[in-house]
Amino acid sequence: MSKYCLTVTCPSTRGIVAMISTYLAANGCNITDSSQFDDLATGRFFMRMSFVPETGVTLEALNDGLIDAAKPFGMTYGFHDERRKEKVVVMVSRFGHCLNDLLYRSRIGALPIEIVGVISNHMDYQKVVVNQDIPFHCIKVTKENKPQAEAQILSVVEDTGAELIVLARYMQILSDAMCRKMSGRIINIHHSFLPSFKGANPYKQAHERGVKLIGATSHYVTSDLDEGPIIEQDTVRVTHAQSPEDYVSLGRDVEAQVLSRAVHAHVHKRVFLNGDKTVVFPAAAGAFASERMG
Amino acid sequence: MSKYCLTVTCPSTRGIVAMISTYLAANGCNITDSSQFDDLATGRFFMRMSFVPETGVTLEALNDGLIDAAKPFGMTYGFHDERRKEKVVVMVSRFGHCLNDLLYRSRIGALPIEIVGVISNHMDYQKVVVNQDIPFHCIKVTKENKPQAEAQILSVVEDTGAELIVLARYMQILSDAMCRKMSGRIINIHHSFLPSFKGANPYKQAHERGVKLIGATSHYVTSDLDEGPIIEQDTVRVTHAQSPEDYVSLGRDVEAQVLSRAVHAHVHKRVFLNGDKTVVFPAAAGAFASERMG
Amino acid sequence: MSKYCLTVTCPSTRGIVAMISTYLAANGCNITDSSQFDDLATGRFFMRMSFVPETGVTLEALNDGLIDAAKPFGMTYGFHDERRKEKVVVMVSRFGHCLNDLLYRSRIGALPIEIVGVISNHMDYQKVVVNQDIPFHCIKVTKENKPQAEAQILSVVEDTGAELIVLARYMQILSDAMCRKMSGRIINIHHSFLPSFKGANPYKQAHERGVKLIGATSHYVTSDLDEGPIIEQDTVRVTHAQSPEDYVSLGRDVEAQVLSRAVHAHVHKRVFLNGDKTVVFPAAAGAFASERMG
Amino acid sequence: MSKYCLTVTCPSTRGIVAMISTYLAANGCNITDSSQFDDLATGRFFMRMSFVPETGVTLEALNDGLIDAAKPFGMTYGFHDERRKEKVVVMVSRFGHCLNDLLYRSRIGALPIEIVGVISNHMDYQKVVVNQDIPFHCIKVTKENKPQAEAQILSVVEDTGAELIVLARYMQILSDAMCRKMSGRIINIHHSFLPSFKGANPYKQAHERGVKLIGATSHYVTSDLDEGPIIEQDTVRVTHAQSPEDYVSLGRDVEAQVLSRAVHAHVHKRVFLNGDKTVVFPAAAGAFASERMG
Repeated sequence: MSKYCLTVTCPSTRGIVAMISTYLAANGCNITDSSQFDDLATGRFFMRMSFVPETGVTLEALNDGLIDAAKPFGMTYGFHDERRKEKVVVMVSRFGHCLNDLLYRSRIGALPIEIVGVISNHMDYQKVVVNQDIPFHCIKVTKENKPQAEAQILSVVEDTGAELIVLARYMQILSDAMCRKMSGRIINIHHSFLPSFKGANPYKQAHERGVKLIGATSHYVTSDLDEGPIIEQDTVRVTHAQSPEDYVSLGRDVEAQVLSRAVHAHVHKRVFLNGDKTVVFPAAAGAFASERMG
Repeated sequence: MSKYCLTVTCPSTRGIVAMISTYLAANGCNITDSSQFDDLATGRFFMRMSFVPETGVTLEALNDGLIDAAKPFGMTYGFHDERRKEKVVVMVSRFGHCLNDLLYRSRIGALPIEIVGVISNHMDYQKVVVNQDIPFHCIKVTKENKPQAEAQILSVVEDTGAELIVLARYMQILSDAMCRKMSGRIINIHHSFLPSFKGANPYKQAHERGVKLIGATSHYVTSDLDEGPIIEQDTVRVTHAQSPEDYVSLGRDVEAQVLSRAVHAHVHKRVFLNGDKTVVFPAAAGAFASERMG
Repeated sequence: MSKYCLTVTCPSTRGIVAMISTYLAANGCNITDSSQFDDLATGRFFMRMSFVPETGVTLEALNDGLIDAAKPFGMTYGFHDERRKEKVVVMVSRFGHCLNDLLYRSRIGALPIEIVGVISNHMDYQKVVVNQDIPFHCIKVTKENKPQAEAQILSVVEDTGAELIVLARYMQILSDAMCRKMSGRIINIHHSFLPSFKGANPYKQAHERGVKLIGATSHYVTSDLDEGPIIEQDTVRVTHAQSPEDYVSLGRDVEAQVLSRAVHAHVHKRVFLNGDKTVVFPAAAGAFASERMG
Repeated sequence: MSKYCLTVTCPSTRGIVAMISTYLAANGCNITDSSQFDDLATGRFFMRMSFVPETGVTLEALNDGLIDAAKPFGMTYGFHDERRKEKVVVMVSRFGHCLNDLLYRSRIGALPIEIVGVISNHMDYQKVVVNQDIPFHCIKVTKENKPQAEAQILSVVEDTGAELIVLARYMQILSDAMCRKMSGRIINIHHSFLPSFKGANPYKQAHERGVKLIGATSHYVTSDLDEGPIIEQDTVRVTHAQSPEDYVSLGRDVEAQVLSRAVHAHVHKRVFLNGDKTVVFPAAAGAFASERMG
């Protein structure tokens, strides 16, 4: 049984849901999950529907058939196969916990992604990655070779057909050009509860300020460092008794989970850009279920 | 600007959303929030839509106009005015924290309810209630007078036109007859994370078992004690260092919050009965906003 | 049975615990709870012990008897009666949820405080406060009368013998002089997860940034606005669907709880100033237990 | 710089802390962390102290020197080197997330354990384990060979010198004899919030009951299935929209974390048995810090 989903954004107006749901019904589709959001502040409308094409209509036919009806609404839309795994390149520096987590979730099918390559500016994780039969690319970055290094990175992305780059504690700053080129297709994890403690050494900053919770933030990467649209955040309690080194360890769990939740939302087409912010719809039934036991 | 909502349940099939949304659009209604759930296990479909009647259609007209179209779907539905405050009777025994919390949230309009009466088998909270200009009814319950006491309770409910009874730590067990009569219209808070620690003294039970989190559960009352459909639950961390008396105090906050969240969901028509379980949709935009500052 | 506690700070060195515990044992005291912290960064040592004076030694005798032994350690210490209720003045502006919460916790003895007065720059809560037999002082503050208004506030504090001022959403900024005079004796609640969103309208700031959790922070007041040592913080999840007005409502619960936890820690002598940060020890057994049911 | 810790249990009485801390000071030890608990219900006293042996005293000397002084207190005590890694055998069946998590935490030194062997009744994780240079033992268990299988398990434990067995979703029930023999040295993770949903298929049970949070429980194994002393628990929110398969996936994260926290507490000597319950002291400063980045 196929499972499709539809994503829609357009100016808010009357009749959108009626038009869409009538179109789907006419094409033999049974809607099984639906979320929508009207942003009163911006006048934008966002919708995501999961549905079962009970009479076998194809994604292509659905897509083409909606073109004319969508126009008067000024609608941007996309039909997606919920079974298809998104191709992902993971980038990592020396902290490996997010990489380890993504590899595991990908391996058991808890995240519907295919990791088509891992890029690092260090050699630490070559064996781990290669043992999972995933190509590992060590691309060193220096002040001098930055343009060439980014060209190499982009060529890995292009060669593998990657649709998404996940920065899993990758500590190099990407160039503006790269950010623009891959806009909305790079997800980063920052090890603080943004907007607090931007930049370097956020755990040390947090320790110095004496906060009682530390956190992590997953966001789309823009050319504005640590300012991109936030997808997911979470926090964990700390006490005076813990050192910055304890924070690093306690933060690992929350970083890995926040990042994997953000990637889950993105690849399930639950995230919409809304200016500098995001709309993140809840997961449909069954969306968390894994393919394998371990 | 009016704000209405529609609740729908029926067997799951193709075309429900299309029929409903087309109907609303035809009546000048702009859908601003929508949630749905297809229960694959039971084949039941649940939906809730918030909408603005932009051309002034009335609830009654909307209700009558859908009767014929709803029939083939075997649909149960209701149109509701989101501004109308539900009339609520609160019942309490000697622990007053949930009562205090409900009074406060009602007073500032954080919960859209009108507390039309408070019933207690003790006199402790007479002054507090009366000072908020709410009638207080002391109805003592003994083994002997139980039927008469329940008749008194029911007559308060009927006289006030109460649509919902909230048991805010009311420690008397209601009769089967009462539970059946008010089925789906009585919400209780139990001071444990059900199904653990049913019955009396749950904090003592929890302390003896040595659990590391305690909790609270809000559920619809059925004749099966502590077995009704769960609406909301939450937990709070405890340690070996805490006594059962500490649990009672720590539990107060989680009880009051769990109960108020359950009442919030109920009066916003976000809760649906689904066999022995509930479907609870997320709150629409603005549903938490209060009327007053304090 | 009396319950005392001892608080100690001094430079970290060997033998402190031995000296203190030997002294207590020699005076017939049975230690029932103990927490300590060695700050490696600052070389400061902090300790708090709860104990039962089994042979009836008085606080005064304990205090005097330790003077000589404490000197070589450069020790600052205090003996406290855990049963004594601290006198507190609460200050509030127009948001009343924290006031309501503190009044309730004080009334049932969940917080061992005696609220000796409530000061507000508005009249909204006069009736609520007076009905609990607590004096209410309306002290308006304008640009012109600020020094006189603060003098009035201080005179309430002095007349009542208040040991602590709790700013329960009091929206006027206190003068430097006031902050210095009451240093370590004013606790504020700020409605954001500091250091994010300092200053005015933090919920609006949070909404604009698109964070996925909002929070509250309780801290000692210093002349540096929203920069004082943090005592307690917590967060609550929000979604794109919620408006800034929803945030205000959702934030109420977390604000009230964070503030009451901070006050609980302070009056139980569990908070120590450590430069710009705090040491907050866990509560001893029974410290949360309330005196009354409601 | 060495780091030692001392664990003490005895009947509660006056003078214990004084005796111990004087003894440590006399031996040149600087106490850096201390936790204690007086159980009023059982009259038992529990204490854990971290300290630095600044003048080089050995564990053996400390241990021997306390024997006589400990006797009148009826004291059980132990001195431990906080740097020593405990030898652990991990047992697993087909769900591999807890194993993966423990392997990772052990590899980066976030858990001070040495995994000296992995035992499974299936072959699934042989490659993963062997690639980390850890011996993998496949020991099939049937009704018929149970005694022989357990003998094999015990011989792995003995041959490796393992001090702790961690059941990381090992689905075979251990015999009473085995439970008794390894009493207090086997930690299990159960995929429910005990005491709810004991036995098989807890996620299915939870789904049927319609709870709003699911959980996981780590406990010492006794011959009473799912009834052993609880070390750590946690919960995660679910909704009506999630299937039992979603629960399995959502539960993975909380299971892995609860188990690793329990093992962390155990190997840091922070857990004490207190009848059917546990005392779990907070982690000392630096106890969470990892050795490596990833």
